[in-house]
Amino acid sequence: MFRPVYLDHNATTPLDPAVLSAMLPWLESQFGNASSRHEYGRQARQAIDEARQRVAAAVNAHATEVVFTSGGSEANNLFLKGAAATMKPSALAVSAVEHPCILKPAAQLARQGWTCHMLAVDAAGRVESAGFAEVMQARPRLVSVMAANNETGVLQDIVSLAPLAKAAGAWFHSDAVQMLGKHAIDFRALNAAGLNALTVSAHKACGPKGVAALILDKRVELQPLIAGGGHERGLRSGTENVAAIVGFGVAAELAARRAAELPQRLRQLQMQLETGLAALGATIFAQQAPRLPNTAYFAFPDIDGETLVGKLDRDGFAVASGAACSSANPEPSHVLRAMGVAPEIARGAVRVSLGATTTADEIERFIHTLQQTVGRLQGLTALLN
Amino acid sequence: MFRPVYLDHNATTPLDPAVLSAMLPWLESQFGNASSRHEYGRQARQAIDEARQRVAAAVNAHATEVVFTSGGSEANNLFLKGAAATMKPSALAVSAVEHPCILKPAAQLARQGWTCHMLAVDAAGRVESAGFAEVMQARPRLVSVMAANNETGVLQDIVSLAPLAKAAGAWFHSDAVQMLGKHAIDFRALNAAGLNALTVSAHKACGPKGVAALILDKRVELQPLIAGGGHERGLRSGTENVAAIVGFGVAAELAARRAAELPQRLRQLQMQLETGLAALGATIFAQQAPRLPNTAYFAFPDIDGETLVGKLDRDGFAVASGAACSSANPEPSHVLRAMGVAPEIARGAVRVSLGATTTADEIERFIHTLQQTVGRLQGLTALLN
Repeated sequence: MFRPVYLDHNATTPLDPAVLSAMLPWLESQFGNASSRHEYGRQARQAIDEARQRVAAAVNAHATEVVFTSGGSEANNLFLKGAAATMKPSALAVSAVEHPCILKPAAQLARQGWTCHMLAVDAAGRVESAGFAEVMQARPRLVSVMAANNETGVLQDIVSLAPLAKAAGAWFHSDAVQMLGKHAIDFRALNAAGLNALTVSAHKACGPKGVAALILDKRVELQPLIAGGGHERGLRSGTENVAAIVGFGVAAELAARRAAELPQRLRQLQMQLETGLAALGATIFAQQAPRLPNTAYFAFPDIDGETLVGKLDRDGFAVASGAACSSANPEPSHVLRAMGVAPEIARGAVRVSLGATTTADEIERFIHTLQQTVGRLQGLTALLN
Repeated sequence: MFRPVYLDHNATTPLDPAVLSAMLPWLESQFGNASSRHEYGRQARQAIDEARQRVAAAVNAHATEVVFTSGGSEANNLFLKGAAATMKPSALAVSAVEHPCILKPAAQLARQGWTCHMLAVDAAGRVESAGFAEVMQARPRLVSVMAANNETGVLQDIVSLAPLAKAAGAWFHSDAVQMLGKHAIDFRALNAAGLNALTVSAHKACGPKGVAALILDKRVELQPLIAGGGHERGLRSGTENVAAIVGFGVAAELAARRAAELPQRLRQLQMQLETGLAALGATIFAQQAPRLPNTAYFAFPDIDGETLVGKLDRDGFAVASGAACSSANPEPSHVLRAMGVAPEIARGAVRVSLGATTTADEIERFIHTLQQTVGRLQGLTALLN
């Protein structure tokens, strides 16, 4: 079977074989409900407890701070709407480059009477600290700024922003879904600086789809989105997805173990890729900012991003024209808009995101194919003009 | 390895081998994000579309009426809170024997200004139609009555209640989580009678944990609990759990295919079991009501349910002392309380729930072991008295 080269690791990642191996018993003979008080149930409960320890250790948190959810979108909604439900409507602040699963809940809260402040980013995609400090004057009760952007890979300076949010009396949350597996995460240090909650997701880090965690400072009170049997300390009811949780534990442990080596290797591949892109005349977005080591976001003059992604797909390379979640949306990226990128350039945006399985040879072949494809498309454009 | 006999299929079920086989490719080479616009993404999207068709066909609904969620608790919360969020607080009605994932959201809504009517059940555990009609006079906007109870197995007469709810102008929902795989489900017929939404869950019917569906009449407007990328027609955002959804499709198809044969076989095993229980002097709950063919809920005089479950566990039989989800809760079952069962009897409640893998030999051995265990415990009680 023809297998295209997969260069879309920010959308999702293949399961690590060790993760799948760890999951299989829980899809086979050890199928119990973790709430059951018999042998099958106790096995499942113990497996969840161990996975919770692993996830906690991977982000330097305590196991009791881990709230398992069905995914990053749920964890982000749980923080924003769950905390808001314990308060009278007041003010909240989110960055303009957040994922829709922060922006949409913020918009829902705005319709319920909350004042929603948008935190501006500079041309490199970083939250402006002066603007952040100014918004904190409005004393928002809730603040959310993502740790790493899914499109640009830009890292936000959470540890510097956190004391400002804390001083303003806000609960401060960060969506770190794109960070796990690509960058070390230290919840304890961030928490000491003033961060109260963090979202990490398994399937972005060689774990399974269908599981994520909200790492939560226990001082933060939340109303559950999913109320019922009282699972996850009453914060998230529903029969635990044991196999997925076990897989998450192993993936998180692998991510932490590789944090010393993999990011360096990815960084080299990213340099190889971006050197090639620059030689072909691409504009590379957010290159001035600290970024994830695996993400390259770029555009070619006069070439539509969707068209280029389609051509590359047929030529055997799987890349993205923007965040996977909003691929159905033909609007130019809200992230690039927030960075002040002109719409005609933003429409050309293509994202290549590397992973643990990516090789230098794949990058070389990708650049070679891209050169031919871009040449053909630009020739076509020249003919049409 | 020692494997206890599993008689707790209402808590969860083992994956059918055909379900696991169907899931595996989506945990291995076909790992794409269904929102991605490349080969990996298109494969995942197509698999989800096919699974949606299968789940729809299994409950006689249209594929566009299937909203995938992470589980039954989420689907139930989505219906109640999602519909309520589109309305001004008014009245809602739920039966007294609902699962906590209906009762708790109803309580959350009550704290937001909703009037919550509890629909009473009779001594056999059935919603009283006179009482139901009376509550409908209050014109509740939302009504939820479960199709089959997880503890007693009692079937509610949804098709007869639905026209009353419809006449009152309510959106009527039924939690059918315990029905799939044990009883045929015809959403089209129920919808014609006045039912607007139905919850089914994969892991109760030999499918995987972590996926369920809200089958939803498209006239019902819902606000998403999880807002974000706009998945599931904007009703449930988050990267789809492709493998689990594929597994659900196969499990639902198996359930529908077996609906002609399996319930009859389970009914025979249930009769064998309950004949044995009666001979041992057990009180069998809700035996007068139409019930699922797989559930036997009973108590022995002067024997604590938790204690009996623990002894049976050590003797190699996995059974429940109540709903698995509330096993951490030492209170007597709210279902038995609603039926008017005296607390001292309710505390003895033990649930045996059979499944596709259960054999007559297992039932025979269970009754034999139970006889010895009950004899020992009653002897102990007699000594203590």
